[in-house]
Amino acid sequence: MKECEERTVICENVTVKDGRLRFAGQDCGELARRFGTPVYLYDEDRLRANCRRFVSAVKRAFGEGGFVLYASKAAAFRQMYRIAGSEGLGTDVVSCGEIAAAQAAGFDLSNAFFHSNNKTDADIAYAMDRGVGYFVVDCSEELFALAVAAAERGIRQKVLLRITPGIDPHTHAAVRTGQVDSKFGSAIETGRAEEMTRLALSLRNLELAGFHCHIGSQIFTADPFVRAARIMTDFAADMRDALGYTAKIIDLGGGIGVRYVEDQPSCDPGEIIGEMAAAMNERCAERGLPLPRVAIEPGRAIAADAGMTLYTAGSVKRIPGYKSYVSVDGGMTDNPRFALYGSPYTVIAAEKADEECSERFSVVGRCCESGDIIGENIPLPPSVGRGDVIACLTTGAYHFSMSSNYNRVCRPPVVMLKSGGAYLAVKAQTPEDLLRGEV
Amino acid sequence: MKECEERTVICENVTVKDGRLRFAGQDCGELARRFGTPVYLYDEDRLRANCRRFVSAVKRAFGEGGFVLYASKAAAFRQMYRIAGSEGLGTDVVSCGEIAAAQAAGFDLSNAFFHSNNKTDADIAYAMDRGVGYFVVDCSEELFALAVAAAERGIRQKVLLRITPGIDPHTHAAVRTGQVDSKFGSAIETGRAEEMTRLALSLRNLELAGFHCHIGSQIFTADPFVRAARIMTDFAADMRDALGYTAKIIDLGGGIGVRYVEDQPSCDPGEIIGEMAAAMNERCAERGLPLPRVAIEPGRAIAADAGMTLYTAGSVKRIPGYKSYVSVDGGMTDNPRFALYGSPYTVIAAEKADEECSERFSVVGRCCESGDIIGENIPLPPSVGRGDVIACLTTGAYHFSMSSNYNRVCRPPVVMLKSGGAYLAVKAQTPEDLLRGEV
Repeated sequence: MKECEERTVICENVTVKDGRLRFAGQDCGELARRFGTPVYLYDEDRLRANCRRFVSAVKRAFGEGGFVLYASKAAAFRQMYRIAGSEGLGTDVVSCGEIAAAQAAGFDLSNAFFHSNNKTDADIAYAMDRGVGYFVVDCSEELFALAVAAAERGIRQKVLLRITPGIDPHTHAAVRTGQVDSKFGSAIETGRAEEMTRLALSLRNLELAGFHCHIGSQIFTADPFVRAARIMTDFAADMRDALGYTAKIIDLGGGIGVRYVEDQPSCDPGEIIGEMAAAMNERCAERGLPLPRVAIEPGRAIAADAGMTLYTAGSVKRIPGYKSYVSVDGGMTDNPRFALYGSPYTVIAAEKADEECSERFSVVGRCCESGDIIGENIPLPPSVGRGDVIACLTTGAYHFSMSSNYNRVCRPPVVMLKSGGAYLAVKAQTPEDLLRGEV
Repeated sequence: MKECEERTVICENVTVKDGRLRFAGQDCGELARRFGTPVYLYDEDRLRANCRRFVSAVKRAFGEGGFVLYASKAAAFRQMYRIAGSEGLGTDVVSCGEIAAAQAAGFDLSNAFFHSNNKTDADIAYAMDRGVGYFVVDCSEELFALAVAAAERGIRQKVLLRITPGIDPHTHAAVRTGQVDSKFGSAIETGRAEEMTRLALSLRNLELAGFHCHIGSQIFTADPFVRAARIMTDFAADMRDALGYTAKIIDLGGGIGVRYVEDQPSCDPGEIIGEMAAAMNERCAERGLPLPRVAIEPGRAIAADAGMTLYTAGSVKRIPGYKSYVSVDGGMTDNPRFALYGSPYTVIAAEKADEECSERFSVVGRCCESGDIIGENIPLPPSVGRGDVIACLTTGAYHFSMSSNYNRVCRPPVVMLKSGGAYLAVKAQTPEDLLRGEV
């Protein structure tokens, strides 16, 4: 008898065999029953493979000076820092909360780069006292605050300046950050980036390590990255010419696209990083600039396709002449990305994965809010009903980290899958947990 | 010497005197320094006054059978349930988390109405075992699950059916819920509402107490409410005629608008409720239906204008030829409503409240995300800078309850103001708190 073939969905760690959805080689229906729903699943092997793919691409493209920072806001629980750290990545942190989690994971904070457009004096003290290696500085107020805090501690703090290269990669406005009109960084075009460089060089308790940029998210083509790499190299060369300052580090940020649905392309980070390196090498040669150390900051590209969320359907509502709804036991509390950006997802009835998906549904959450939507116009089998396990794919980035307790819904647990086994990385919240701190 | 006059901003509990913003009669600059920023402030006297306003309006309009349920998802921390309960309100809860908080506050759960389009079997067991008075049933799956759970416990559970009256009040799509095409309830138009009534009446462990509807949020005119009241009365009369069943309760939901900015109107709930009652009395008389007990479910209208958020400005960025930004030490983590709906707010530099607001700013948060915005095109004084206290008004509803730990930013504390004093209702989270449950 011929064995049923295993087919892949969206990403190679998601397969269907005998009508059942599998993630990291494990049966999603069984995982749902074992851990309950909703549950965030992570595929540790995929996380590690993604880390390695970036490290090897960056080393190949930029030599031994190249390095990778995990943009941890994508998924910032403790075990993620352990995994990223053990794969040789540094990390990009954006708050005291992320610093605390990295530290609790035993992460070497000298490899942490502290971003944020608005670091308070308390944030700066917290980070400096814990030995965060680099501050990525967004504004002059922060430069002065850092200089004062470093002087008080008798140290010389390494900083990078966040530069806006003036690139609009045409993604969603909420995740587009590299254009001149941005709350982030200092624009080259307006002369502000040069002013900030002069200012940083004038503050003796600060050591200017280099420049950083981040042009946006979900970018699928090399072109915007290549343009950013060229502009940043030129800016570094201009600063060398104007101020005699040679940047040691250029941090080109993240933003490489991830495939959520069939009609999105797959990105090859190695190819994109290779093209960035070619452009930088060319500009460096033309301008007589030594190639700096180059950093890349993947977050989504590390975490997204290593994650999946399992739900259970609660009701199916067909409204004749209008549309049909499947309600699940999670929603905008564990995944606010449709509500925020209208982001598309691939949704599958995990134990009916070979049934014909001949009907379309709005897959909605359990919150008392009409905008609580996982996906619109989702093909599912007509037999879908209460008790069915519903999988939402590619949820490893910006799901756990953006979750809320709206409606006082408890955050689902995080279960890590590894080598056929599974372990709890973050416990589920309970209604009693949510009362903590309330008088 | 003439004393400087005190002027009101948006709501009577927000005033400016001698250039300083006051909330509930207390100086916002001093509160910011005492409790730190960001901080959620609540005006307990205003909360209580809002509760009383609704109770008296409902009793006046609907007689002693009228009652008010606090739609607690607007702000569901423990002290809110205590205040609502002590003012004689019942409550609308939507999850085990809300039930746990109400119970922890000593709330009489026999006065709790459990909403949600998707109650799991676990939710039903949790609520039933704690004596929640009423389940507001959204779908047939839930009716069957309730019947089974009630039978197992040997009880007869009171339920209401959520009905969609087919009204589109033309508000934001994410908060519009009363139209036929909705994940919520059963439509009259399609015959589904009648089918659900028959079904509920056929299940002997359920006692059908009546019908519920909720047409949406931020509705400023009486007309949609009056139409809903008429339609629901007619539906109740139709069910009496068709099935011999007379509803004891009609719960008309919430949705009365709140003024966030100067160009929005103020609503008079008493007037709207009075018009609803007039319409219902008229229809009841015409149809020979005894007036049922009527419930109203204000959430935002109780909590919103009793709240204010204080921030501290971190940087001011003027981008020549583009626009100007003020970054504050909170943002979409404590207030996701601009990111979700583009909701407008009134924002004031609390200690520069009499300076001319001759410049416009994007007031943005501290998250690493361009969509992290409190308001666009906000008039502020040109002198605004790092360290200034920035007040965002009318943040009592859907702020604390919708907050997240995105970027691992800690949730601000909730401070309750009362009679010139202040007390902590919810402690601030710490970076260490966020690690709880993480292996």
